[in-house]
Amino acid sequence: MPAHTPETLAILEARTREHYETFRARGLKLDMTRGKPSPEQLDLSLGLLTLPGNGDYLSEAGDDARNYGGTQGLPEVRRLFQTMLQAPAEQIVVGENSSLALMHDCLVWALLKGVPGGSAPWSKTPAPGFICPVPGYDRHFALNEEFGFRPLPVAMTDDGPDMDAVEALAADPSVKGMWCVPKYSNPTGAVYSARTAHRLATMKTGAADFRLFWDNAYAVHDLTPTRHAIPDILTLCAEAGHADRPFLFASTSKITLAGAGLAFFAGSPANVAWYLARVAKRTVGPDKLNQLRHVRFLKDHDGILRHMAAQRRLLAPKFEAVLAALDRHLGDLGQVRWTRPEGGYFISVDAMDGTARRTVELARALGIALTPAGATWPGNQDPNDRVLRLAPSFPSVEAVRVAAEGIALCIRLAALEKLRAA
Amino acid sequence: MPAHTPETLAILEARTREHYETFRARGLKLDMTRGKPSPEQLDLSLGLLTLPGNGDYLSEAGDDARNYGGTQGLPEVRRLFQTMLQAPAEQIVVGENSSLALMHDCLVWALLKGVPGGSAPWSKTPAPGFICPVPGYDRHFALNEEFGFRPLPVAMTDDGPDMDAVEALAADPSVKGMWCVPKYSNPTGAVYSARTAHRLATMKTGAADFRLFWDNAYAVHDLTPTRHAIPDILTLCAEAGHADRPFLFASTSKITLAGAGLAFFAGSPANVAWYLARVAKRTVGPDKLNQLRHVRFLKDHDGILRHMAAQRRLLAPKFEAVLAALDRHLGDLGQVRWTRPEGGYFISVDAMDGTARRTVELARALGIALTPAGATWPGNQDPNDRVLRLAPSFPSVEAVRVAAEGIALCIRLAALEKLRAA
Repeated sequence: MPAHTPETLAILEARTREHYETFRARGLKLDMTRGKPSPEQLDLSLGLLTLPGNGDYLSEAGDDARNYGGTQGLPEVRRLFQTMLQAPAEQIVVGENSSLALMHDCLVWALLKGVPGGSAPWSKTPAPGFICPVPGYDRHFALNEEFGFRPLPVAMTDDGPDMDAVEALAADPSVKGMWCVPKYSNPTGAVYSARTAHRLATMKTGAADFRLFWDNAYAVHDLTPTRHAIPDILTLCAEAGHADRPFLFASTSKITLAGAGLAFFAGSPANVAWYLARVAKRTVGPDKLNQLRHVRFLKDHDGILRHMAAQRRLLAPKFEAVLAALDRHLGDLGQVRWTRPEGGYFISVDAMDGTARRTVELARALGIALTPAGATWPGNQDPNDRVLRLAPSFPSVEAVRVAAEGIALCIRLAALEKLRAA
Repeated sequence: MPAHTPETLAILEARTREHYETFRARGLKLDMTRGKPSPEQLDLSLGLLTLPGNGDYLSEAGDDARNYGGTQGLPEVRRLFQTMLQAPAEQIVVGENSSLALMHDCLVWALLKGVPGGSAPWSKTPAPGFICPVPGYDRHFALNEEFGFRPLPVAMTDDGPDMDAVEALAADPSVKGMWCVPKYSNPTGAVYSARTAHRLATMKTGAADFRLFWDNAYAVHDLTPTRHAIPDILTLCAEAGHADRPFLFASTSKITLAGAGLAFFAGSPANVAWYLARVAKRTVGPDKLNQLRHVRFLKDHDGILRHMAAQRRLLAPKFEAVLAALDRHLGDLGQVRWTRPEGGYFISVDAMDGTARRTVELARALGIALTPAGATWPGNQDPNDRVLRLAPSFPSVEAVRVAAEGIALCIRLAALEKLRAA
């Protein structure tokens, strides 16, 4: 925004506040806090509710999916997801409904047992460091906090994390891992470039047992007809002589059912052997009926893509509604920027510095729940009080349209208050 | 067996060996290693394969069971199992298909975070001690081994563990926990008496954060019309001023489907709050569709009991077949004893000392796979080489009859070999 006189700013603020108060009078109650699928999205998978179906419990190999066993997951379900995961079926392990749970387990096993290539459990390193691209996923950072990792924020760019900063941090032997959401990163929507992935695969790390926690949560979650491809990190790392560096994670939480999907771990043969040895102590086998259900329902990789195209038709209009409102109300405020993601579940807004918390507060007064300001930073501490994560998936398009309008007004009002106070 | 002359022993052994060789000629292939439900038992729950059913995804409270959330589990599923668990619904947490997984998680969280009443994570205690009634469950002991606990074997009696030994061990502040399978204990079938439970609840422990891992795996798994009752350990501990002492576990693995059931954690309000705080870092919620499936299928506690009566009709004849064979072939060998369990999944045989391994070897040559000798002891080390765990659930009654005959012969042959060598 060009520099305004105090008088002009006062007029702009008054006008925005009037608009805001009109909104408040509507007594809204809208929730834009979490990347939660809408009921209409879940309806796309209604078929799962009667599957695997009458008497259908034998796997392709003739194993009884109702019984114990099958720790790695049925071969047919590992094959079904190998393209999506960019990993061969034999290097995939299928878990229960939450990939977060698999990341949790890898962290605790790394702490208590160590990982291949390491000389000691990670818990022998006091406050092991973990590289955290910011803004990032709050639940990743919460795991770091839970288990005493030292979070090391690095800035995200459009191509992925700032690799100069990553390389500098990774050189420290006490730095053990790094979060990566390589495609449609949570929350900025950035897609890791080939160059970023190459540097991640080849960089020197101080710790021989350093791990990329490659959370490919949005592998097939495109919002446009363009299916962005991300680098094959398993192969890149293997070629660089660091085959054991990446732990891959994914799930069907945002493909089929958020609460009743499948989660996946993948990695090098050594990592898979390590994972299987650990998980075999934890359980006598995963829910293979849910695996059969998914095989019967999605059938093959094309089936996954068709299903995701239907998801896109429900999601894209909501993202467009948010972007339209931001364009309309904030286009003249140069200090406010936002992402135009081509996939994933979030729009990330850089509000004017020092106004993110105020924006969330203003929105709450409108009856619009936003993700708490700071949530995208470790310890919920956004040093610039800048980032807002908008999650438009759950409410109806109409509700998102109204909410986006309200949120844009709040961002604007907070910015104008700040400018006038300056 | 009355003392025999070497000549008589040689004749008995030769006769048994002849019988054994006849058996070997049959070229059997039978598996009696694991407490795995049979296909017929799993068929009792075929109804689950099409549940929750078309469009049936709303919980009693109107929540969408397909979506994220509901960390503690649906209230209706917690109510359904509260009688079985002997815990109020609000003190129950529902997890995925494996109670072993919940025990694993409690152990790792105790190690890394500590438990209510503790002043430090258990990992601060070098090689924390864990009391292990023997013979016991191999997967419990494997968890101890995986995470560096010091196993402390105590003898089982018909009333539960030898409580004098337990109390002496628990007085040591470095002893943090104890395995308990209170009903139809794995593998002896013992049912903890009121007196045992009372002593467990009231005993002085050296560690303020000592925990009973109360694995009520066979809560409703009766093999006779008698439904043995076990003491309500939650109340007993609370009355003794040790409300936080017990962690309760159970699952439907051997009620509905071994690979697709529900698992439960229960405990004091403080323990439940602790568990929920931990598990909320691990997952955005359990598979609530599987919870709905179980509610629709089992309906209420009477439904569970009816279902278990059907299980009993399938299981009891297999146990009877094994006991008949043991009676027939080993009745004259006073040094061999076995349990007559009224519930659970196992018959435990005390073979003649120093012959358990040999028995397993002889059985293998017959084509009968037995649980490895030693498996019921920590580290797979049975100091007397005595205990054999027989698991008759999986094969058909006919197969169990044949296998039991063969196993009895092997136990007898191993004993006679030993007697003659003595």
